[in-house]
Amino acid sequence: MATILDSAKALEQTIRESAEFAHLKQQYDNVYADEATKKLFDDFRNLQFTLQTKQMQREEITQEEIIQAQEHVVAVQQNEKISALLEAEQQMSNVIQQINQIVMKPLEELYND
Amino acid sequence: MATILDSAKALEQTIRESAEFAHLKQQYDNVYADEATKKLFDDFRNLQFTLQTKQMQREEITQEEIIQAQEHVVAVQQNEKISALLEAEQQMSNVIQQINQIVMKPLEELYND
Ligand SMILES: [Ca+2]
Ligand SMILES: [Ca+2]
Repeated sequence: MATILDSAKALEQTIRESAEFAHLKQQYDNVYADEATKKLFDDFRNLQFTLQTKQMQREEITQEEIIQAQEHVVAVQQNEKISALLEAEQQMSNVIQQINQIVMKPLEELYND
Repeated sequence: MATILDSAKALEQTIRESAEFAHLKQQYDNVYADEATKKLFDDFRNLQFTLQTKQMQREEITQEEIIQAQEHVVAVQQNEKISALLEAEQQMSNVIQQINQIVMKPLEELYND
């Protein structure tokens, strides 16, 4: 067990020291350094979270909420700092997905044999 | 990017060579070496899959299916080879969960700062 967790910690350290992580952190700092941009981003995230929670619980999403969400998406896309952060998040999410695929390979092979 | 994926592949290799993985593979081979045990296990997994799919799609699960599932759980628990496999799977699942927690730490810290 020690060995697997040591190896996972080595991966964690590699992520911390990666260009992708530094880039994501930089975009995040850029958004949070500006009060108006920070508020826009936080509102966007909160609305996303509310809508996702409703969707998971199969609650009704009102027409007003849909319009509100669309307006937020437009505002967010027009903000270069937030667009850059969302793009960096997407890149990191792709990296995490690739990590998961690699790490789960031994188990997948076991069950597909 | 190369470095993160290299590090993920090193973790994959550590998992392949781990005692936990060897143990899981052994329990899996034990179950599949015996035709009756294999059938019991496959039926159990197929029923689990059917019920989980129904649950996710919020389809009705019949009383008959619940009784069938309970009977399968009893039969499976009484089979030592299958119990040993389920226990090995649970252990591996705990390891995977710990790996995920370690690997996601840098991102969690970024968002909780
Ligand atoms: Ca521009
Ligand atoms: Ca016994």
